[in-house]
Amino acid sequence: MTDFTATRAAFHLPEGMIYLDGNSLGPLPKAVAARVAQTVTAEWGDHLITGWNACGWMDMPARLGDRIGRLIGAEPGHVVVGDTLSIKVFQALAAALKLNPDRRVILSDTGNFPSDLYMAEGLISLLGPDYELRLVAPEEVETSITDDIAVTLITEVDYRTGRKHDMAALTAKAHANGVVTIWDLAHSAGALPVDLAGAKADFAVGCTYKYLNGGPGAPAFIYVSPRHADMALPALSGWLGHDSPFAFDLDYTPGAGIARMRVGTPPIVQMAALDAALDAWDDVDMADLRARSIELSDRFIAGVEATCPDLILASPRDATQRGSQVSFRFADGYAAMQALIAHKVIGDFRAPDIMRFGFTPLYLNEQDIDAAIEILANIMRDRLWDTPEFKQRKAVT
Amino acid sequence: MTDFTATRAAFHLPEGMIYLDGNSLGPLPKAVAARVAQTVTAEWGDHLITGWNACGWMDMPARLGDRIGRLIGAEPGHVVVGDTLSIKVFQALAAALKLNPDRRVILSDTGNFPSDLYMAEGLISLLGPDYELRLVAPEEVETSITDDIAVTLITEVDYRTGRKHDMAALTAKAHANGVVTIWDLAHSAGALPVDLAGAKADFAVGCTYKYLNGGPGAPAFIYVSPRHADMALPALSGWLGHDSPFAFDLDYTPGAGIARMRVGTPPIVQMAALDAALDAWDDVDMADLRARSIELSDRFIAGVEATCPDLILASPRDATQRGSQVSFRFADGYAAMQALIAHKVIGDFRAPDIMRFGFTPLYLNEQDIDAAIEILANIMRDRLWDTPEFKQRKAVT
Repeated sequence: MTDFTATRAAFHLPEGMIYLDGNSLGPLPKAVAARVAQTVTAEWGDHLITGWNACGWMDMPARLGDRIGRLIGAEPGHVVVGDTLSIKVFQALAAALKLNPDRRVILSDTGNFPSDLYMAEGLISLLGPDYELRLVAPEEVETSITDDIAVTLITEVDYRTGRKHDMAALTAKAHANGVVTIWDLAHSAGALPVDLAGAKADFAVGCTYKYLNGGPGAPAFIYVSPRHADMALPALSGWLGHDSPFAFDLDYTPGAGIARMRVGTPPIVQMAALDAALDAWDDVDMADLRARSIELSDRFIAGVEATCPDLILASPRDATQRGSQVSFRFADGYAAMQALIAHKVIGDFRAPDIMRFGFTPLYLNEQDIDAAIEILANIMRDRLWDTPEFKQRKAVT
Repeated sequence: MTDFTATRAAFHLPEGMIYLDGNSLGPLPKAVAARVAQTVTAEWGDHLITGWNACGWMDMPARLGDRIGRLIGAEPGHVVVGDTLSIKVFQALAAALKLNPDRRVILSDTGNFPSDLYMAEGLISLLGPDYELRLVAPEEVETSITDDIAVTLITEVDYRTGRKHDMAALTAKAHANGVVTIWDLAHSAGALPVDLAGAKADFAVGCTYKYLNGGPGAPAFIYVSPRHADMALPALSGWLGHDSPFAFDLDYTPGAGIARMRVGTPPIVQMAALDAALDAWDDVDMADLRARSIELSDRFIAGVEATCPDLILASPRDATQRGSQVSFRFADGYAAMQALIAHKVIGDFRAPDIMRFGFTPLYLNEQDIDAAIEILANIMRDRLWDTPEFKQRKAVT
């Protein structure tokens, strides 16, 4: 049984703050500061260029990849860390389309995170106008998987509503129709059990600054199934994905398997932070995590619905259909969220009217949930959000 | 007059080590550790998600871009920091080709860093086989700029020999032939004066972990000339390059100017390290830097040639034709470099036979150069490199 009191103690949580935004940026694991200081001062400072070998820097993308791989059901040796999620989406999509060369349609849904769609647009701008990005409503994805689709590009958990796709079922239907699948795990990795190998997923990508707590701008990851890893071409063919980077050949020869999905020089300081953050996961059972996440989320929904009649649940009521977040619709949601943040309950807002709350069992407990509900209830009851200050939107939220 | 004693004092230089590899990874500026600790503990730790506004994280790509822009002669507001150099090469190349839509040839040279060529190959794999990467010898670039070339992709300073292209002359010839230019400044930024605006360069890219001392895996930068900034399409069209990232539109609308060259969430911890590292440049005059670099490099060449007859200068003898590095050819150069490193003089080796030394006036002085020459002379005279241990190549150097 996972000890969530112990995992909570591993995080720096500012006094008096209730942090329900770990689905956007996870809080600081206490182990990170010392590890980053060591990487900067002892490793970079004293080893300089020799750190690439002496301090294991060169191996970090694959080593961290395997640490994350364990949490998402990947086969060992099939995940690498690097770049940003947008870049990894591009790389997966370019490779997946090449594996299905006779088809031209990328299927995605309107609940996907926009950057995934933008990267698909950008790729199509290079490939030519016979390629198509076909967008359907999230509920229509399953029926839209037909034998003219080349690739599905689907985020498992909707960033706004928390609605969760059925990865195993959609992947099976995709394969029955000759479609290659890409799963974006931005709101899945560290949020709920993922079984990439069991679902026979083809590609997966994700970020590490949300539920994995790697810090602001922590690097992304990419998974390529063993079935494709030696055939998939990265398109973003950088020197660290070369079969022999230090031979400095003039021609590109892709490295073996997932290694080819590396691109440029990895961000070592940021990776050190992530490495330390991943320690918090060592003794976590993902089934326990899921059970606890549902407990906390259901408790929040019940409490908010009992006290805030103006907030309309935007997430599926059935917990098995959700990720690890809960969203409510409210026309003045932006102002309400600003008021909530002013009262030190941190969630976030997503246009047009979504108030979003993340439930992260590693560091949240029942007391947090109950206190957040009470503060939110006060704000709604007394219309504390209804001030010019809170209603004025900033450029960035 | 730049005070190079003061700049040297700003770096952590391990006792007894002579570091001639700042052209590969710069040493640790003393200001970095405290700044990174502050970013991790005070910013991320205490501000969490609100750090994006409260701590200025969202502005870092542009703010750091301008700090670097000053060192490379860019117009303010036309450089952003992010991703890796390979990614920025891809982005610049895709945008440059779109600006010259009737042509299909990318011109580069065999002295370019291979990753630039690999990224061009990868881009061509998407654009189709009517595109061509044309490689010529470095000395043939000028005569090869003809009116069938779409884009030149040239690294100003050759990573192996240190040979420097004439940016102003090649750019002028390119423009006379209707060619768009991309300059890779990996071995230029912080190494010598660069005048992008004066040369009328179209695009430039570079990295920050070499002469700019940003740390292992520090982010890259990209420059787009004001003439193109509002027309150039990034191809890697991520959400942070969107005109309104937090509107979460389903369609991509490029941001104004250089902002569109941002892709995904920026690596804040790594950027904090870079920001602190750039402080060392505040009082540096680039003309002083160049004069000092030439003094140190010429001194090294004279000393080595006087004492090591087996080492053949691979760099231009005329200092105005070089960057800030000096290379020598030696058939057993790998072993000789290993022996030198064992004696705490750090340079590096590049296949097949290049011993490479970087001269970085911010933290090197005459005593370092003379001591390095003496140690190298001893190694060569007594054949200290001729041992099985030093001759055995490791996978990564």
